[in-house]
Amino acid sequence: MLKLCRKYVNWIQNSVFEGEITEVKLKELLSEAGRIMNKEKDSMIIFKTRQEKWLEKVVVGKEKNELDNVI
Amino acid sequence: MLKLCRKYVNWIQNSVFEGEITEVKLKELLSEAGRIMNKEKDSMIIFKTRQEKWLEKVVVGKEKNELDNVI
Repeated sequence: MLKLCRKYVNWIQNSVFEGEITEVKLKELLSEAGRIMNKEKDSMIIFKTRQEKWLEKVVVGKEKNELDNVI
Repeated sequence: MLKLCRKYVNWIQNSVFEGEITEVKLKELLSEAGRIMNKEKDSMIIFKTRQEKWLEKVVVGKEKNELDNVI
């Protein structure tokens, strides 16, 4: 799942990703995710906003997960 | 950190929380989080939007983390 998500968006923390994505690519991601996840147990939650300015980001502590460069 | 965050917002998945919070309460949460976290290693990322309608939520798979009721 991590590998799949990283194909489309940026991994920012644990199981959290962030990024710009087209509707077509998002549908592709959701369809692939739905295929590999256990829908009884797992979930993927998407928060979408059409304008980047509508979403403000605040970071406390360490900004970037170093593992991102390693894995 | 889980316990602290759950005092203010709802736990929706792993280390992800969601909720409405006033600016005053958010400052309180960030200040308490800053005190207990290891700022060299940990991070807390906040995505804020002023209007709920600016943020669309889509869920694939299991909607609610059952653990929320247990812990």
